[in-house]
Amino acid sequence: MTDSNDLSVSRSAARKPFRRLLLTGAAGNLGKQLRGALADWADIVRVSDIAPLGEVAAHEEAAIVDLADAAAVHALLEGVDAVVHLGGISVEAPFEDLLEANIRGLYNLYSSAQKQGVKRIVYASSNHAVGFHPVTSVLDADAPLRPDGLYGVTKCFGESLSRYYFDRFGLETVCLRIGSSFEQPKSARMLVTYLSYRDFIELVRCSLFTNRVGHAIVYGVSNNRISWVDNSKAAFLGFRPKDSSEPFEHLFPAGAPDARFDDPTQLYQGGPFVLAGPMEPKRNNAAGESR
Amino acid sequence: MTDSNDLSVSRSAARKPFRRLLLTGAAGNLGKQLRGALADWADIVRVSDIAPLGEVAAHEEAAIVDLADAAAVHALLEGVDAVVHLGGISVEAPFEDLLEANIRGLYNLYSSAQKQGVKRIVYASSNHAVGFHPVTSVLDADAPLRPDGLYGVTKCFGESLSRYYFDRFGLETVCLRIGSSFEQPKSARMLVTYLSYRDFIELVRCSLFTNRVGHAIVYGVSNNRISWVDNSKAAFLGFRPKDSSEPFEHLFPAGAPDARFDDPTQLYQGGPFVLAGPMEPKRNNAAGESR
Amino acid sequence: MTDSNDLSVSRSAARKPFRRLLLTGAAGNLGKQLRGALADWADIVRVSDIAPLGEVAAHEEAAIVDLADAAAVHALLEGVDAVVHLGGISVEAPFEDLLEANIRGLYNLYSSAQKQGVKRIVYASSNHAVGFHPVTSVLDADAPLRPDGLYGVTKCFGESLSRYYFDRFGLETVCLRIGSSFEQPKSARMLVTYLSYRDFIELVRCSLFTNRVGHAIVYGVSNNRISWVDNSKAAFLGFRPKDSSEPFEHLFPAGAPDARFDDPTQLYQGGPFVLAGPMEPKRNNAAGESR
Amino acid sequence: MTDSNDLSVSRSAARKPFRRLLLTGAAGNLGKQLRGALADWADIVRVSDIAPLGEVAAHEEAAIVDLADAAAVHALLEGVDAVVHLGGISVEAPFEDLLEANIRGLYNLYSSAQKQGVKRIVYASSNHAVGFHPVTSVLDADAPLRPDGLYGVTKCFGESLSRYYFDRFGLETVCLRIGSSFEQPKSARMLVTYLSYRDFIELVRCSLFTNRVGHAIVYGVSNNRISWVDNSKAAFLGFRPKDSSEPFEHLFPAGAPDARFDDPTQLYQGGPFVLAGPMEPKRNNAAGESR
Amino acid sequence: MTDSNDLSVSRSAARKPFRRLLLTGAAGNLGKQLRGALADWADIVRVSDIAPLGEVAAHEEAAIVDLADAAAVHALLEGVDAVVHLGGISVEAPFEDLLEANIRGLYNLYSSAQKQGVKRIVYASSNHAVGFHPVTSVLDADAPLRPDGLYGVTKCFGESLSRYYFDRFGLETVCLRIGSSFEQPKSARMLVTYLSYRDFIELVRCSLFTNRVGHAIVYGVSNNRISWVDNSKAAFLGFRPKDSSEPFEHLFPAGAPDARFDDPTQLYQGGPFVLAGPMEPKRNNAAGESR
Amino acid sequence: MTDSNDLSVSRSAARKPFRRLLLTGAAGNLGKQLRGALADWADIVRVSDIAPLGEVAAHEEAAIVDLADAAAVHALLEGVDAVVHLGGISVEAPFEDLLEANIRGLYNLYSSAQKQGVKRIVYASSNHAVGFHPVTSVLDADAPLRPDGLYGVTKCFGESLSRYYFDRFGLETVCLRIGSSFEQPKSARMLVTYLSYRDFIELVRCSLFTNRVGHAIVYGVSNNRISWVDNSKAAFLGFRPKDSSEPFEHLFPAGAPDARFDDPTQLYQGGPFVLAGPMEPKRNNAAGESR
Repeated sequence: MTDSNDLSVSRSAARKPFRRLLLTGAAGNLGKQLRGALADWADIVRVSDIAPLGEVAAHEEAAIVDLADAAAVHALLEGVDAVVHLGGISVEAPFEDLLEANIRGLYNLYSSAQKQGVKRIVYASSNHAVGFHPVTSVLDADAPLRPDGLYGVTKCFGESLSRYYFDRFGLETVCLRIGSSFEQPKSARMLVTYLSYRDFIELVRCSLFTNRVGHAIVYGVSNNRISWVDNSKAAFLGFRPKDSSEPFEHLFPAGAPDARFDDPTQLYQGGPFVLAGPMEPKRNNAAGESR
Repeated sequence: MTDSNDLSVSRSAARKPFRRLLLTGAAGNLGKQLRGALADWADIVRVSDIAPLGEVAAHEEAAIVDLADAAAVHALLEGVDAVVHLGGISVEAPFEDLLEANIRGLYNLYSSAQKQGVKRIVYASSNHAVGFHPVTSVLDADAPLRPDGLYGVTKCFGESLSRYYFDRFGLETVCLRIGSSFEQPKSARMLVTYLSYRDFIELVRCSLFTNRVGHAIVYGVSNNRISWVDNSKAAFLGFRPKDSSEPFEHLFPAGAPDARFDDPTQLYQGGPFVLAGPMEPKRNNAAGESR
Repeated sequence: MTDSNDLSVSRSAARKPFRRLLLTGAAGNLGKQLRGALADWADIVRVSDIAPLGEVAAHEEAAIVDLADAAAVHALLEGVDAVVHLGGISVEAPFEDLLEANIRGLYNLYSSAQKQGVKRIVYASSNHAVGFHPVTSVLDADAPLRPDGLYGVTKCFGESLSRYYFDRFGLETVCLRIGSSFEQPKSARMLVTYLSYRDFIELVRCSLFTNRVGHAIVYGVSNNRISWVDNSKAAFLGFRPKDSSEPFEHLFPAGAPDARFDDPTQLYQGGPFVLAGPMEPKRNNAAGESR
Repeated sequence: MTDSNDLSVSRSAARKPFRRLLLTGAAGNLGKQLRGALADWADIVRVSDIAPLGEVAAHEEAAIVDLADAAAVHALLEGVDAVVHLGGISVEAPFEDLLEANIRGLYNLYSSAQKQGVKRIVYASSNHAVGFHPVTSVLDADAPLRPDGLYGVTKCFGESLSRYYFDRFGLETVCLRIGSSFEQPKSARMLVTYLSYRDFIELVRCSLFTNRVGHAIVYGVSNNRISWVDNSKAAFLGFRPKDSSEPFEHLFPAGAPDARFDDPTQLYQGGPFVLAGPMEPKRNNAAGESR
Repeated sequence: MTDSNDLSVSRSAARKPFRRLLLTGAAGNLGKQLRGALADWADIVRVSDIAPLGEVAAHEEAAIVDLADAAAVHALLEGVDAVVHLGGISVEAPFEDLLEANIRGLYNLYSSAQKQGVKRIVYASSNHAVGFHPVTSVLDADAPLRPDGLYGVTKCFGESLSRYYFDRFGLETVCLRIGSSFEQPKSARMLVTYLSYRDFIELVRCSLFTNRVGHAIVYGVSNNRISWVDNSKAAFLGFRPKDSSEPFEHLFPAGAPDARFDDPTQLYQGGPFVLAGPMEPKRNNAAGESR
Repeated sequence: MTDSNDLSVSRSAARKPFRRLLLTGAAGNLGKQLRGALADWADIVRVSDIAPLGEVAAHEEAAIVDLADAAAVHALLEGVDAVVHLGGISVEAPFEDLLEANIRGLYNLYSSAQKQGVKRIVYASSNHAVGFHPVTSVLDADAPLRPDGLYGVTKCFGESLSRYYFDRFGLETVCLRIGSSFEQPKSARMLVTYLSYRDFIELVRCSLFTNRVGHAIVYGVSNNRISWVDNSKAAFLGFRPKDSSEPFEHLFPAGAPDARFDDPTQLYQGGPFVLAGPMEPKRNNAAGESR
């Protein structure tokens, strides 16, 4: 997997587990969190986004890339061992935009990765791929897909596409059904879906370093008290969250149950997302924005 | 849900999550444990039992009610937001008594609750609804009903009745399949079924405050070493027991396995209950006794 | 099981499989269908109902019995080998009536049967024990209980009570979740739930003659084209329906799907039953009426 | 659903179950089979394709439409009660083409259908959505998605998208995972996947006329001797195939098992499809071609 | 797989699907039934048994072989395409005998088959591998092993051993859990377990000719009215029994259920087998006797 | 179970839970770990092996026994309450050796135990009974058997044999599917399969002292971060591992995933075992060697 002809990095430094990792969506919220951690795992960290990437470190290669641009994506994958794919749109958006960033863009990524011999992709799927399950259910990796918007539909597309590339070519993918990864929960719902930055980084670490992952699905949530998910079928990844939303529960004190008993944003795991789509096309909506 | 016409409680105090909670069976063992805790959760705590209720606090309303008395139950439910129903008979008893307290009484409760707009009932079901499962099995919320006595049969009735009221009217219920909730375990079997008072109160808290519960089934046991139950399908309730029977294991030291290999009280989870019924009618057996 | 001291029936005639079968609810719709068939299976057919039973044949014993009358039921069970229990109320009714006929009455039946050594009861449960499942689901014997009315709740009670008597005493029961057994379907819904009289009789035959049945649950429907049930877990009973509602499909020609998309009577298997309950008490409502 | 203001069709003729059905892909192999049958089911049959549609009957409305053209699709859906969607690409093809016809085109269809109040879509999914399951497995409606090519991936997309429109808006879809529907099987594999034209038409009929279908998944295969699928979870549709591939078995006599034990086209249900993709873009490849 | 150096059979005749099939246990009850059928499927039929094999046809090769003799078994497998293994002991027997014939013998068979490149073995397992399941259960291919005797234990061994040879070397096996294959049922139990000779031959045909079988488990029963098994997971084999025990039901008319409610021979699917073992060693008990 | 007539041990000492425990394979790696612990659990500890047993303590009885010697095993079981069976071969070995030690030897053990009234056997099965499951799966007690060698096949045999003795005679067995129990993990794979000595002893303790175990299957692994197993169905045993391989993870730092994507030793849980067998017979290979 390492390219012995590439002399631009001295062999003395080449003792990290990976030779070159690609991080897409590096300018986004989660990309920023992860970017530093990758330095410990790879000699070279290639970062990309459609947005500016800030200062580039010595061990980094930076590229501004629109995922919908096949040629650019092909170049981006060159010499890459593994990918952490956070790029694309990560919120509900008009279909046209999602089509370019999350469907055409994802195909470009997998097609190029396969052609260039990439062995593994860690793919930021989302709990919105299953957000139309009720909040009174607990989902495992085999739960039926129930996207809660067009964004969620594109995440389902990504899970199917990556499954195909694994079955057809052995290109491994870990689909991270990420909950809500922020500094801290921003709502009562996020007490359930919260994924601390530290746990997020650990989840990516497990996804990259487990020797074989096949095509895996794992929920990205911290060890919160209330849980809608069950990761027992992904125990082979060794992801054991260390954080919990419990310290933040006081911010959103439980009251009596909400009286609007037919409010879909209260009934389904997707919360407000279940009513957010479908969106009409907007002017100037940038495809390929970072997560 | 709050009744703005009721002026008897000053608005300045009305900042607790619930306006009025009803606790039935308040004079019983578990009712006494819970009664104090409810003060923190509701402006007004209405307590009822067929037995004397002791001193009534300023925030409390007390009522001596026979659950089999439909009119009395109807009055009891007036103005109530939610119910914790511990009332009725909680041990094996003659059918006639169970019929009045646990079947007729429960129907009275649900019928009145629905008519008066109550939104949720926390229902003390029992592990005896499934007590004829062997001690070598582990039950989740979907385990088939296997009542171990007529008492258990009435608990199955309650689970079916409450399911109907949820499907028909959206009246939510959490069925607590309570194990053995005492100061401490009283037998080797109770090392498995033990539910500490603290965990019991926490379980009721989760059942009342989770925003949506639908019709849920959860086992009421502490985090004991040996377990016959699996609450993973109720993870959305956020119940995480803090206690365990381990500190009491020394009271009932394990010996060699009991030699009577066909003893049903050793083979089934219900323990001695599996042989306790059916009981013949007795004189002066009080229906509606507190749990 | 045969009583060799009973000389009232000559031994020469005593060559039928059963010595004495009890049929409750014999004056009802299904009771009338079955009554004749039983003559071939038992030397003596005891028939009972709360309503008049018509002419009594030579091989028959007739008894007018209110199931809520414990002493009368006890006498009814004397000397009986097996029971086909069609008695009680078989439609939605006020709770008081259901309580007497279907709860107290059923307890009387099982209690007496056990005390008198009856070995098996074929129990007319109902599809209304699971009628709140959507019409887009297919139910097997392990489907969760979802009663669609108080009548359905009492059928769930019967399934739990009979389970207990099997686990406790080995008294076997086959719970027949009967669909709609009439001369012919009376609505589009009944095209799905139709059970021809011939198939009904065959189902009872299988339930009585299979050597071991334990506590079994089987759906009573003919081989209709559209099906909401799956009897594969009851294949040990050998019930293979010979009829179908297909010849009656022209009576209820399918139109475009009904436009009222939130009409519960169209969404749930129970059809009109899902809105029929709970009923208020009525004057003069006879408990214990025949099925 | 019928439009009483529309006077262009005399009321005397307006006695067919549907007022107006839309058939997309009407110029394709299966479209041609179905086109005639629809005349019996709807007053007006609107047929569309990107290819010429031949002679248009009196009860028909014809439209040449590229599914990727949102405005054209919106117009196509006007006044439609229900849709049979056979349009789009139905074989492995370059991603660009599939993207336009099967992804953008399908979004256009659902988006327009929802806005115009269409109540149901019968969607031609494919066994290629699950074609990477081994030939030694039997799949039911809950089998995990395992697309065997990019074409299959777009079918998975369609199943997710239609699920969303059902959960969000109640727009019902039956996903037909059609096997191989031709005059007769063309290979040994098609003996397993064969769907006769007659059974295909019956399957569409069941999908249109069943009163409620929710979001259903059903395999479109005849009653062939060897089967890789199990439609028991879709029994509520009432699809009972009348044909079988058995009369054609002599055309492809079984030999000794194929010796190439690692040949994926023999190991997976998708057969030759599993190696067909991904295809490189071709010049002049028409998107939106008929099935 | 065909041996081009073997000139003893003229090429003109070599048009049957298999070049050489081996039938072990050919002198036994089922071996005799099958021997003729094999002539249509293979140019050369090699038959073996520990007992005399009768007249040998022109297309046959006969060998008297003790399965416990590794060298003899190795020679027996030479040049063989596929095996139908009916050899070994097929009834409860002392462990020593079973060890030689069914354990050591089976290992010899698989070890030699693998070394000589045999591609598939049709293995006569037995319903006695699962005979300790109750008669009120219905078993599919994933039912837990519950052998009802030491004979059944050796059949479990065979299923595990063959699974290993498939996982390790790709040597395919179909495990036939044969019920009771005789001219006609000999008891009421055999009405359930009956496999007609015709259906048995068809089952072997399906097992040999299905293109890929992996490691499959299928129950060998005819289409009897009462069934304890469910072959839906083996639908890929295409086995559709044409016979039924129904014509023989009159031979064993159902009476009232057997009164001995704790009789294991009535409670478990294995019937009398469940009490037959373990047997003490006997003098002169021949190992390797034919089925 | 204690024999009150046996005066050879003074009553004052006879206060341990068991009267006499047998430990086979006592000279092996795990046997040595356990031997001391047993002193606390039984008045008399009988230890056996085919290899020298070292110094014999006052409370011990020692016996050199070849498990393949039926008479010797019969004597060994005399007066025993329960057995911890670690004896036999615990690595891949030629079939002949495994046959003697693990098949004939195990039969001797169970046959003698049953005849002498032993109530429970704790049986050292192995993760190699299921070692051909992929490393991307998580196995519970119902996972299908997938032995990864002939050694694993003999462990499957033991699980079937013991199941039979439980169903037939009520002789209880806990099958311990032991992972890798050493001082510390010796490879990256053992980070997953590691069972600390302390946890191993606790697992045996739970297996001996739980009042009823029936026929149980439990995985013997510590609380390692990465897990391939799920013991939730064995929660009734109360085994809660206290150790983890995490402190040893630094010894086998994760690199980039291994590049040989078709290496079975990386793909399957059995690791190197999956290629170790079948072994050819060797000279002087001792049967019955200790674990």
